[in-house]
Amino acid sequence: MTKTVPVGVSARHIHLSQAHVEALFGAGYELTEFKPLSQPGQFAANETVAVKGSKGAFPKVRILGPARKATQLEISRTDAFAIGVPAPVRESGNIAGSAGITITGPAGELTIEEGVIVAARHIHFHTDDAARWGIEDQQLLNVRVGGERGLVFENVIARVSDSYALDMHIDTDEANAAGVKNGDTAEIVG
Amino acid sequence: MTKTVPVGVSARHIHLSQAHVEALFGAGYELTEFKPLSQPGQFAANETVAVKGSKGAFPKVRILGPARKATQLEISRTDAFAIGVPAPVRESGNIAGSAGITITGPAGELTIEEGVIVAARHIHFHTDDAARWGIEDQQLLNVRVGGERGLVFENVIARVSDSYALDMHIDTDEANAAGVKNGDTAEIVG
Repeated sequence: MTKTVPVGVSARHIHLSQAHVEALFGAGYELTEFKPLSQPGQFAANETVAVKGSKGAFPKVRILGPARKATQLEISRTDAFAIGVPAPVRESGNIAGSAGITITGPAGELTIEEGVIVAARHIHFHTDDAARWGIEDQQLLNVRVGGERGLVFENVIARVSDSYALDMHIDTDEANAAGVKNGDTAEIVG
Repeated sequence: MTKTVPVGVSARHIHLSQAHVEALFGAGYELTEFKPLSQPGQFAANETVAVKGSKGAFPKVRILGPARKATQLEISRTDAFAIGVPAPVRESGNIAGSAGITITGPAGELTIEEGVIVAARHIHFHTDDAARWGIEDQQLLNVRVGGERGLVFENVIARVSDSYALDMHIDTDEANAAGVKNGDTAEIVG
C-alpha cells in the first residue's frame, strides 16, 4: 500500500501565549485571522512581531494563532545561525531548556528564556489515516521525497489525533535540501 | 565494506574569471590566499564581493580561487529565495541558461547573464578511492547521514580525478536539514 502524504513547508513563525499577545500588542488584544492553516482551527494571523538574537534580527515574523499556553518561536537552522540563537531541534511543545530571544511588538518588548526551537520534522495523521496505515502516535518514520534533490528523511515523528489533518511538516532548510514546495507529496517508506 | 566520507559544507561563495577579477578589483589584480580548501590548489581568497538580486543582496560573498574560466556564484535555495534569484540546481561548471546577478567589487560593478547556481551535491573521489570502492565518475550515489536529523541523500554525483581529495560537498540547506557540520562523516549506502 502506497502511503502518500502532502508536504507543508513551515517558514519561521511564532506562537504566543495570550499574556504575551497582550504584552506585545496591548491589554485585551486578540489575534486576528489572516488565513486558515492545514490543521483545523489553526490560522496565520495578520499580526507579526520582530525577534532579535545575539547576531541579528528578523523584523517581521508571522504569528500563528490561536494563542497557546506557551510562547514558541520556530526557526530553521539557517535562521538560527543567521541571528545567533542556539535553537535545539525539538518537537513542538517541548521547550524546556531551549533557546531564548527578545520579541518586539507595537506595544512592548519582552525576552523569553526558552521557547526558541528548530521544529523536528513530523507528520500529522488523523486517527483514521493512522489506523488504516498501521501507524502509531510518536512512531519514527522514514519518508521519501523524489526528484533531482530526492532524499529519505529519517526520524520523522508521527503525531496522531482526531483533530489533525494529514500533512507532513518540514522547515525551509529541509524543503530546500529536498527541492520540495508546499503541496508536493512524499511517501512513507518505512 | 563501509564507505565513509568526510562532509564539507559549502557556504555561499563565488568563483571569478580573471577578467572579472580585474573588472571588480582593478587591472592586473590577482586574488590573494586567505586559507587553503580541501581540494588541492583551491583556496578561500581574502577578497569578497557584493551580489545583488531582484529582492535583496549579500554584501560580502567570499571568493574562492584560483580564477576560473567562467564566473560562477554558488548559493543555497534559501539564499536564492532571499535575494530573488531563480538559480537552478546544477553541477559545477554547467552554467548554460542558469540565473544572472549583479556583482560589485571595490573597483567596479558588472552583471552576468548566467552563472548563478545551486550546486548539486557531490563527492570528490581521488582515483584510488573510487577504484577501491568500485565507483565511477558521474555515478549517482545514495549517501546516509545519521543523528537526530538523519537522512539519505539520493542523486549524489561522484566526481573522480587524481587531483581530488575525498570529500562530500553539500550546501548549507542540506547540512542544516541533516544536522551535520564540517568534518562530520557520511556513509555511501548505494
